[in-house]
Amino acid sequence: MKQYDVIIIGGGPSGIITGVTGIKQNPGKKFLMFKEEEKGLVPCGIPYILHDLNDVDKNTMGPAPFIEAGGEVSVDPVTSIDFERKTLKTKSETEYAYDKLVFATGSVPIIPKFIKGYDLANVEYISKSYNHIKALKAKTDSAKNIVIIGAGFIGVEVAEQLAKYKDKEVHLVEMQNHCLCAAFSEKLSSMADSLIQDQGVKLHTSRKVMEIAGIEGKANAVLLDDGTKLAADLVIIAIGYRPNTDLAKASGLDLNCNKAIVVDNYLRCQIKDVFAVGDCSQSIGFITGRADNIMLASTATAEARILGYNLFSIKLLRNFSGTLSVFATQIGPTVLASAGAIKQAADAAGISYICGEFEDVDRHPGAISDACQQYVSLIVSLASGAIIGSEICGCKSAGELINVVGLAIQKRVTVYELISYQIGTHPLLTAAPTKYVLIKAAENAVAKLKKAQG
Amino acid sequence: MKQYDVIIIGGGPSGIITGVTGIKQNPGKKFLMFKEEEKGLVPCGIPYILHDLNDVDKNTMGPAPFIEAGGEVSVDPVTSIDFERKTLKTKSETEYAYDKLVFATGSVPIIPKFIKGYDLANVEYISKSYNHIKALKAKTDSAKNIVIIGAGFIGVEVAEQLAKYKDKEVHLVEMQNHCLCAAFSEKLSSMADSLIQDQGVKLHTSRKVMEIAGIEGKANAVLLDDGTKLAADLVIIAIGYRPNTDLAKASGLDLNCNKAIVVDNYLRCQIKDVFAVGDCSQSIGFITGRADNIMLASTATAEARILGYNLFSIKLLRNFSGTLSVFATQIGPTVLASAGAIKQAADAAGISYICGEFEDVDRHPGAISDACQQYVSLIVSLASGAIIGSEICGCKSAGELINVVGLAIQKRVTVYELISYQIGTHPLLTAAPTKYVLIKAAENAVAKLKKAQG
Repeated sequence: MKQYDVIIIGGGPSGIITGVTGIKQNPGKKFLMFKEEEKGLVPCGIPYILHDLNDVDKNTMGPAPFIEAGGEVSVDPVTSIDFERKTLKTKSETEYAYDKLVFATGSVPIIPKFIKGYDLANVEYISKSYNHIKALKAKTDSAKNIVIIGAGFIGVEVAEQLAKYKDKEVHLVEMQNHCLCAAFSEKLSSMADSLIQDQGVKLHTSRKVMEIAGIEGKANAVLLDDGTKLAADLVIIAIGYRPNTDLAKASGLDLNCNKAIVVDNYLRCQIKDVFAVGDCSQSIGFITGRADNIMLASTATAEARILGYNLFSIKLLRNFSGTLSVFATQIGPTVLASAGAIKQAADAAGISYICGEFEDVDRHPGAISDACQQYVSLIVSLASGAIIGSEICGCKSAGELINVVGLAIQKRVTVYELISYQIGTHPLLTAAPTKYVLIKAAENAVAKLKKAQG
Repeated sequence: MKQYDVIIIGGGPSGIITGVTGIKQNPGKKFLMFKEEEKGLVPCGIPYILHDLNDVDKNTMGPAPFIEAGGEVSVDPVTSIDFERKTLKTKSETEYAYDKLVFATGSVPIIPKFIKGYDLANVEYISKSYNHIKALKAKTDSAKNIVIIGAGFIGVEVAEQLAKYKDKEVHLVEMQNHCLCAAFSEKLSSMADSLIQDQGVKLHTSRKVMEIAGIEGKANAVLLDDGTKLAADLVIIAIGYRPNTDLAKASGLDLNCNKAIVVDNYLRCQIKDVFAVGDCSQSIGFITGRADNIMLASTATAEARILGYNLFSIKLLRNFSGTLSVFATQIGPTVLASAGAIKQAADAAGISYICGEFEDVDRHPGAISDACQQYVSLIVSLASGAIIGSEICGCKSAGELINVVGLAIQKRVTVYELISYQIGTHPLLTAAPTKYVLIKAAENAVAKLKKAQG
């Protein structure tokens, strides 16, 4: 029986980063990674395969850095685990022994079996499998009428990409009032509606799918609850992802209410020497302190670095407790970004807050040729003045601006502090020093705090 | 005699922000601002008047927000002050009384009287005066052979702009080894040399100007110390700025070794009820703890906000002690940015440090069409692991990325913390979560710290 110090199940971002960091920090230990396919994809780049990259091979991410560091890789799915004997078996009936075992099994698309026709041919999902997405790319290339069900990040990004082909008609169906409404406030999600329509996508919000209709086992239309019938030669379902924890469950690990593997702050499962990291593991919200369902490559890799350092003993303290979601997307030229608690999340968590806002151009003077309007809101604890969340609408630079706010949230910076925050500005790159969005939004928040506190 | 609660001398960014903030935070108080000219300019936008904006009126910044808030403005230079009687006199021989007096007199170009020919016609300076820059714009439009002396930020930006006119020959002369060598390390400043040459500028480093030659009182050539004679129908001297403190000195205020007005952490001069803010006032380096000569609109406005709140009593604590310089510039498509201590500044301050570095593309996958190479170095205290400085070379998004580092420095974040910093990433906007520059540079720093500490 082959023996390894560390076995990692899964070769996505969290598996690779756990492996690379783990090898560097624990010299002399033998690492093995199990993958389901030879090639892997950059997860967040998948929508862009469909148009901008126009080639699945331009979005691959393999375990090369892990192998270069000295790790071994086996393309052979794990089928069963014996935690007592510290062994596992694979599809090829090989048995392996481990000292430390890491679940990095990621997440898989949710399949809505309650929708009639969900299993027809030409009903597709955005998985993270290289072979599957390669086949999907061929299908989108030949399809003319495409209906996408679900207007979360993936649905919106896939719709935006496919609408760039002028010979395709792209419909996007969403049950809620707006696109991206789990990620943004009413203000920004309704803006997202206009933005995606500006890109040529036909948007149907507040509409349920009643049935995916088909002939001879092949989808040809999507029926909505208002009687609309959308012709379709390809249907893409993008209603969300769930932690890929079937193996963990079968092996006897505890799952939480979101079916994620229960772990502590250092990614340790309740069984000794077993860890879970990334989308398949539980995340505790930085703001809410509850088990939230945060599945982002960025938070997964942050966890993976902590795990890589700490596999054999705690060498790196987890300095920011809990998981903070920070993300951004782009629709046409416009970027929407968010960090921490948005209004509805603060409401749901029962946090009293005010919202400091500011809007102006992202260059100075505004006559600079690529200047674009930029809006920032800061969600601020009424009790302490600490920043607990933020939303930004702007252009490209919003992608890093949200990381300034992300650090402020993690370091529990208050708006009183942020007012005197010293920034770098440049006409061609940022807002003016006199009107720098974060500082002006902080000033607005301080005025509202003063008013609220009488 | 007219009586005001607050009189501000100067209408640049620090004067305006002190005024606007002061009026909002101190309702009922009467504010007056003295300006030297009716119209003002966005200081950092001035180089871009020469080409990209192509119009001085696209870069104006007036006291409108101050007037809208209820402030009064007088275009009438102040000529003398009597601190004992709390009065001042203007050029028009009017006398005014104040309760609080604010010096916001900014900075002026350094004039090298030791260079023969410095006072010839067609020898110009980059002042911040609307009327002067309007006249300069007309001169640059008609000039064919332009020699710029001094390759700091202003010299480089002016050269980059003027070289965009294909019918002009632009020479840039610098005494030091490289462009921008006060702002960046050897690595980045030598990169700046190539970048500015790529833009078509003829660069002469390690060269002193011996004389500006002329005929009939008009400059026609610049002579260098190696015998080179550069033909010139326009010479622009950009060797730096000095605090504009002649009035302060004549009035009896203390100046420091940089000729800046001595103030405390709340911008208070040694004379009660007198304040100085922005370029004319002393700044204490955040890292060095010494009187450094930091003259940036961004730090000036940060100080002005603190002063505006605190004119009548300390209402807003200055949370980040000292002044941190954070800045960026763009040469062609490339952005160079810096925050806090660079190598030579850490050396000069006697701080033991290591330098964590990382380089990769700023999009993911790298096949995204506008992906560009991004390099980050973090200067890290050997003693504590705290980040004390950073340099970035990249594209547009480096303008906000440097502000993430700026906040980290101000909040005294260590590289141990930064490793587990949670970030937002997106293919079209940022580096990959697996290779996010700041985190990878922090990892590199931690490895070097470990090695240095044995």
